[in-house]
Amino acid sequence: MRYGAIEAGGTKFVCGIGNEEGIIEDRISFPTEHPEQTMQKVIDYFADKNVTAIGIGSFGPINVDPSSPLYGYITTTPKPGWANYDVLGKLRESFNVPFGWDTDVNAAAFGEAKWGAAQGLDSCVYYTVGTGIGVGVYMEGRLVHGLVHPEGGHVMIRPASDDSFQGTCPYHGDCLEGMAAGPAIEQRWGVKGSELPVDHPTWDLEAYYLAQSISSTILMMSPKKIILGGGVMQQAHLFPLIHTHVQKILNGYIRTESLLENIHSYIVPPGLGTNSGLRGSLALGVEAKRNQQ
Amino acid sequence: MRYGAIEAGGTKFVCGIGNEEGIIEDRISFPTEHPEQTMQKVIDYFADKNVTAIGIGSFGPINVDPSSPLYGYITTTPKPGWANYDVLGKLRESFNVPFGWDTDVNAAAFGEAKWGAAQGLDSCVYYTVGTGIGVGVYMEGRLVHGLVHPEGGHVMIRPASDDSFQGTCPYHGDCLEGMAAGPAIEQRWGVKGSELPVDHPTWDLEAYYLAQSISSTILMMSPKKIILGGGVMQQAHLFPLIHTHVQKILNGYIRTESLLENIHSYIVPPGLGTNSGLRGSLALGVEAKRNQQ
Repeated sequence: MRYGAIEAGGTKFVCGIGNEEGIIEDRISFPTEHPEQTMQKVIDYFADKNVTAIGIGSFGPINVDPSSPLYGYITTTPKPGWANYDVLGKLRESFNVPFGWDTDVNAAAFGEAKWGAAQGLDSCVYYTVGTGIGVGVYMEGRLVHGLVHPEGGHVMIRPASDDSFQGTCPYHGDCLEGMAAGPAIEQRWGVKGSELPVDHPTWDLEAYYLAQSISSTILMMSPKKIILGGGVMQQAHLFPLIHTHVQKILNGYIRTESLLENIHSYIVPPGLGTNSGLRGSLALGVEAKRNQQ
Repeated sequence: MRYGAIEAGGTKFVCGIGNEEGIIEDRISFPTEHPEQTMQKVIDYFADKNVTAIGIGSFGPINVDPSSPLYGYITTTPKPGWANYDVLGKLRESFNVPFGWDTDVNAAAFGEAKWGAAQGLDSCVYYTVGTGIGVGVYMEGRLVHGLVHPEGGHVMIRPASDDSFQGTCPYHGDCLEGMAAGPAIEQRWGVKGSELPVDHPTWDLEAYYLAQSISSTILMMSPKKIILGGGVMQQAHLFPLIHTHVQKILNGYIRTESLLENIHSYIVPPGLGTNSGLRGSLALGVEAKRNQQ
């Protein structure tokens, strides 16, 4: 059986076809324009693919409450045309198959739990650190939604004592995203992070802020693996800095090997590289079919 | 059928008998001494009660991983005699019934979800704010354990700009527990919180620190209800202060009635009063019997 996967990002959409083992057999990618154009391209792509089910990991905020009449909608995004847009409804007009639907970051967490760095574990948290910061949460074998869905990028952090940067978040100023997402790095130094050398002070600061949120994640929900993806995390030298700061913050309070000698294999890059989102969306499709049976 | 419940606290143990509807029919309480004395009292209490199953909500840290040889143990507590003590093993010597076993705060969260303020919801987070600060997590219909179990009292917070108190936590100094648990209030002002008037500045500060952690909880895992119990929360005037600070911190970012006009019914006192722990332990016992069937 062939399954469809849609990684619905605010910048680009990636569509693909894959199997139950998580192997992507075909893919296409195009920029995110107005919903009419973009969704038509999605529909055209899947039209002759004869998929059994489709999984979608979407930018948001989205409605993931199956009991809500707005289930399947993107809700309050500032992105023109997409606010209160019924993504799932549009797809259902063309395809009579089961649909999986979740946030892009929950999809990525799910993909990593199925086939990636958290394979075989019943919990993990996936951070994407890029244009924004998003957090996907998989706990006790289930993706976490709750009241809305996690929005972990916006947690309050403690600014470093010598840091006077005000932050870029329009809602919170100096929350994690406002202090540590890509645009914060760029605004702080006047150049993109990718142009700064590995010994530039921004990286230790970046690691410190991410480590604060990661430490709180560990204390609040104790995931079995923490996975850090996204453009900023392409700077691989951030990982050891983050490991050091997390250990410093927790200060030995939680005594488990994963947080002590083995922290380098506890806070890790995605096992699926840059494909966590697409393969995670595929996993949502496979799961949707299974749940229907 | 009658079920046993044990609320195993670091200061006192409460044992009780109840039914499947969460009604406690009998109870006894005694101070926590060395394990030999305390566990003997527990065993004596249940000896003639003919219970179908027993649920235990315990102080910790404890091992809640059923695949571990140390499942059922209290692990690294400084409490004399209790470190690496096999609570469940001791009880199994005397009672051949199914056992439920979890942290005291997870038990309380479970009790509130079964019969209290979060009744009918599939997620809630329970904070106890007293001698220490503990956090129980119930998500997508399951108690969260993960790597160890949540230890949310120790999250890093941002000190208020005019607060120079160093905090009381031996591990982290000024983490949430170090700044906002009962002993922090007492050490900061030289008197117990219960002796301070409702217009004393400590309460706004207390609410600000709790609100930081609660806001992070909302952002990270989006629970459907947040319940605040424990000795410090007996100061009911803290609730509106906390509501105000949470709204100020989130600043309208998450647009849902529960966090806007209805926040007073979203962040609430325990529906079970001071019985969340005992009735939650009872619920763990009922669940253990169900899982066995």
